[in-house]
Amino acid sequence: MMMSNAIDIRIPDWLIELVSKSDHHYATSKARMMFAISLAQHNIDHGTGGPFGAAIFDIKTHQLIAVGVNLVVSSHCSIAHAEMIAISMAQQQLGSFDLANLSQQPGRGFELVTSCEPCAMCFGAIPWSGIKHLVCGARDEDARGIGFDEGPKMDAWRHALEQRGITVETDICRQSAIDVLQYYATHGGAIYNAGESR
Amino acid sequence: MMMSNAIDIRIPDWLIELVSKSDHHYATSKARMMFAISLAQHNIDHGTGGPFGAAIFDIKTHQLIAVGVNLVVSSHCSIAHAEMIAISMAQQQLGSFDLANLSQQPGRGFELVTSCEPCAMCFGAIPWSGIKHLVCGARDEDARGIGFDEGPKMDAWRHALEQRGITVETDICRQSAIDVLQYYATHGGAIYNAGESR
Repeated sequence: MMMSNAIDIRIPDWLIELVSKSDHHYATSKARMMFAISLAQHNIDHGTGGPFGAAIFDIKTHQLIAVGVNLVVSSHCSIAHAEMIAISMAQQQLGSFDLANLSQQPGRGFELVTSCEPCAMCFGAIPWSGIKHLVCGARDEDARGIGFDEGPKMDAWRHALEQRGITVETDICRQSAIDVLQYYATHGGAIYNAGESR
Repeated sequence: MMMSNAIDIRIPDWLIELVSKSDHHYATSKARMMFAISLAQHNIDHGTGGPFGAAIFDIKTHQLIAVGVNLVVSSHCSIAHAEMIAISMAQQQLGSFDLANLSQQPGRGFELVTSCEPCAMCFGAIPWSGIKHLVCGARDEDARGIGFDEGPKMDAWRHALEQRGITVETDICRQSAIDVLQYYATHGGAIYNAGESR
C-alpha cells in the first residue's frame, strides 16, 4: 500500500490574504465574535466550506493569534471543523501542542471564539488544546435549525469545561451568527450529509 | 500577521515504510487489533509519540486502508491522536470526507481499530468520519492507569455510537494493549501534560 507522507489541510488563499490585512486587535468580545462570524460569511462566499468560523486571541492583549474556517469538503477531511483548524494553526504557529503551557504570566492565556457552539468532537478537543476561555455565537439548536448535526454531545458540556477551568460565554452576537447560518441555507449551501458531517 | 498556508502533520518515515511492507489483509479482529497495538509499540520505540495506534480496514475484505499513531508532540498539535490521523489519512487517500459514502454495496463499510478506547474528542469525531464499526483494545481506565486523561466523555458513549448505527467491540486483546501502555510508562515515556493532552 502506498501511503501519503502527510495530512494535507490547506488554508484557502482568501483567508491568508484577509488575515494579512486584518486589524489584529479586537478590544471587545463582540468585536472578536463579529470577526469570527465574518470568516464564516467569507467561507460561504468563496465556496470553500460550511458556514462556520473561529479565531484564537490572546486573552490579555486581545491580539489575534490564529483563525479557522470549516474545510471539511475541500480538504476531504471530516475533522476539519473551524475550531479544529484554529486550534491547530495556533499551536503549530506557536510551536507547542499545549497553548496553556505558553501562558507564562498569571492570568495570561488564549481564548477560542467560534461562530457556533462546538460540536461533540470540537468540545472534546478543547480540553487538550490548552485554551482557557471559549466564546460562542450561535447555539447548537441554531445549527440544527438549518440541518447540521452537533453530534453526541453531553447536555452538561459547558459545566464539563468549567470543571476543567475553561470558562465559557455563549450567545455573543447570536443573531448575527444565525443570520450567516440562514444565509448559507437559503443561498444553496450544501448541508452535506447532515447527520454525518458539519 | 503572517499565517502558514497549511496544517502540517507529517507521517513518520518508519510508519510509511512499515505500511509499505505490511501484509495488508488481516482476517480476524484479533489480528487487526494486534497490528494496531504494534503501531503503538513502534511509535514508542521510534520516539515519535504516545503509546496509541489505530488502523482503518474494509469491513468486508479486511484490507488495510489507513493507519495512525499519536503525533501530538512531534506535530505540535493536540488533535493529532492516533484515531484522528487514521480517519484523516483514510479520507484523504480515498478522496472523500465521508467514508460511509464510499460504501456502495450493502453491508460494506470501514472499521476503525484502536489500541485504546477513544477519548472525548475522538469519540466525537467518529460519527463524522463515516466509519461503521469501532474496535477497541485497552479501556479508558487502562489509559488513566498510566496517567493519561480521556477527557469529558459521556458514560453512555458506546450507546451513543450504536444509536447512530456504529457498532462497537471492546476488550479485544486488552492485555496486549495494556502491556504497551505499561511499557511506555516504565520506559520513561513522557505522560505529557496528563490532564491536558494524550
